[in-house]
Amino acid sequence: MKLATLKNDTRDGALHVVSKDLSRCLPAGDVAPTLQQALDDWSNVARKLQNLSDKLEADPSAGFVFDQSNCHSPLPRAYQWADGSAYVNHVELVRKARGAEMPESFWTDPLMYQGGSDSFLDPHENIVMPQDDGFGIDMEGEIAIITDDVPMGVSDSDALSHIKLIMLVNDVSLRGLIPGELAKGFGFFQSKPSSAFSPCAITPDELGANWKDGKVHLPLLVTYNGAPFGMANAGIDMTFNFGQLIAHAARTRPLEAGTIIGSGTVSNKLEDGSPGKPITEGGVGYSCIAEIRMIETINHGEPSTPFMQFGDIVAIEMQDSTGKSIFGRIEQKVEKIS
Amino acid sequence: MKLATLKNDTRDGALHVVSKDLSRCLPAGDVAPTLQQALDDWSNVARKLQNLSDKLEADPSAGFVFDQSNCHSPLPRAYQWADGSAYVNHVELVRKARGAEMPESFWTDPLMYQGGSDSFLDPHENIVMPQDDGFGIDMEGEIAIITDDVPMGVSDSDALSHIKLIMLVNDVSLRGLIPGELAKGFGFFQSKPSSAFSPCAITPDELGANWKDGKVHLPLLVTYNGAPFGMANAGIDMTFNFGQLIAHAARTRPLEAGTIIGSGTVSNKLEDGSPGKPITEGGVGYSCIAEIRMIETINHGEPSTPFMQFGDIVAIEMQDSTGKSIFGRIEQKVEKIS
Repeated sequence: MKLATLKNDTRDGALHVVSKDLSRCLPAGDVAPTLQQALDDWSNVARKLQNLSDKLEADPSAGFVFDQSNCHSPLPRAYQWADGSAYVNHVELVRKARGAEMPESFWTDPLMYQGGSDSFLDPHENIVMPQDDGFGIDMEGEIAIITDDVPMGVSDSDALSHIKLIMLVNDVSLRGLIPGELAKGFGFFQSKPSSAFSPCAITPDELGANWKDGKVHLPLLVTYNGAPFGMANAGIDMTFNFGQLIAHAARTRPLEAGTIIGSGTVSNKLEDGSPGKPITEGGVGYSCIAEIRMIETINHGEPSTPFMQFGDIVAIEMQDSTGKSIFGRIEQKVEKIS
Repeated sequence: MKLATLKNDTRDGALHVVSKDLSRCLPAGDVAPTLQQALDDWSNVARKLQNLSDKLEADPSAGFVFDQSNCHSPLPRAYQWADGSAYVNHVELVRKARGAEMPESFWTDPLMYQGGSDSFLDPHENIVMPQDDGFGIDMEGEIAIITDDVPMGVSDSDALSHIKLIMLVNDVSLRGLIPGELAKGFGFFQSKPSSAFSPCAITPDELGANWKDGKVHLPLLVTYNGAPFGMANAGIDMTFNFGQLIAHAARTRPLEAGTIIGSGTVSNKLEDGSPGKPITEGGVGYSCIAEIRMIETINHGEPSTPFMQFGDIVAIEMQDSTGKSIFGRIEQKVEKIS
């Protein structure tokens, strides 16, 4: 099934079940008013939501038009957002661009940071910033999952059973603030403003055979100012699957229902192991601007693609084999704070 | 007024108003079922809670016995927990103990990390860990505040008006995991397991003149295995006040109501600028074990005080001028996971 949170007069919005083709939706308030409330009691609630979903699919006249622009992120605010860096290729490129070696342990021990989760952007909400110059505003196209309650010390394989929903995410990053912030030693804070998630969160079965081994085996389509920018396959070069990322997060504490875990920027290297190529050159392109800038730096000594300026628009989506959007579309413009 | 969250059959517990002497409490469910719901609408709810509090104070027979051991942390789970390091003295000691220089900018630009907020421990809940050996289990006694909605880019001084409640916190830390984790560059994750907060969250006016300039001007009393361990004054050597910490957190994103901001480990240096002394030697002692170990390292080349082992108990409290507990007591034993 597919779930979405429509805006109402509350902070957490109203839970809805959405048709598989994203054309219609039904209020799920009688089952659970909000997605967090559904996740708090998932073992009981999921079946009831599935019944609603079955009803919506069976009756083409049921429900009303689903408007993606009226959506919050599925969890408008969450109790946890932890973002991994599972596409180690991307991490290696970052280091290479600044002339640094990546520790060998990065291939076996996941990188993960604790993100802010109190105020997510809507999927179609502008990225409002006080300045663009110097901030290095960037998108990061990623996959994210939502868990139920995960016990401390869960194994990689058991962790897979705790994945209840899957989303896309734009993990907005301020590249200009990252070096200074990481140099302080305490990780990201100001350099990671609010993220936005896809209109729909879907159960893994909606992906059929494309959900396998704890990975989503489909291209993540990133469009930048209307032009194709990235189509890296999220199932390729993902060094750590979501089971491993969850287990990493749960090593020293339990994770409460509604925890969101991100994959990190989706990134594919070329078959010969060299960094990716732009789509215009026959490659799969990039899920963030930093990556094309790193490749430009490696190839030409300096980057030529600028970071996002006020007015620039990024869209992130994933399509099924018939070209239909699976999660709905993240589409965000960078805007100066008023 | 003083607020607490008593356990019931829900994840978020039941909001109660507590008498100033912590002896009695009244259910506040008719005003707001949970503390988060109160914070979501604080400008309307606070007055009603204050009325309840006034009623409880006026009538000594009102309410029922307040049992601190039946409390959750005031917010059993929160949408944001961001912890500063405002006692720069403490940071300088950490660096000094490992022979590193602290950057001069640390005196003007606050250190802050994003903490996990999905599963806080109760004030009297055991710290359950898979191992003690090698984990370097430590307490960190701190002050924390809770905000209402804070706009992006708030000024230091405006930020002070967004402080609605004050608590104490034990920011449990796994010192053995910190060096490896920080070396990876993404900040703390596994090295910061669940924190616990004081039974009561109180409005700033409850502190009278001891709440001044965005700081709590009272000693933080830390007891370790029944013996006094720390009594550093939280108003002394706090380089950044809570207004500055909030403004730092809100530089590139708004903070949603219920955001918790921590002070970092409370730490006082001696009047001559040298590191603190144990209480047994006439000093104010320490709010974490790492600090006494750092001083032992600086003085003797190596630490002699071990980190917490299974069975060790830490208590954290703050008293008014008559010796009465203000926030109630955090009291936690380290226990092996079963």
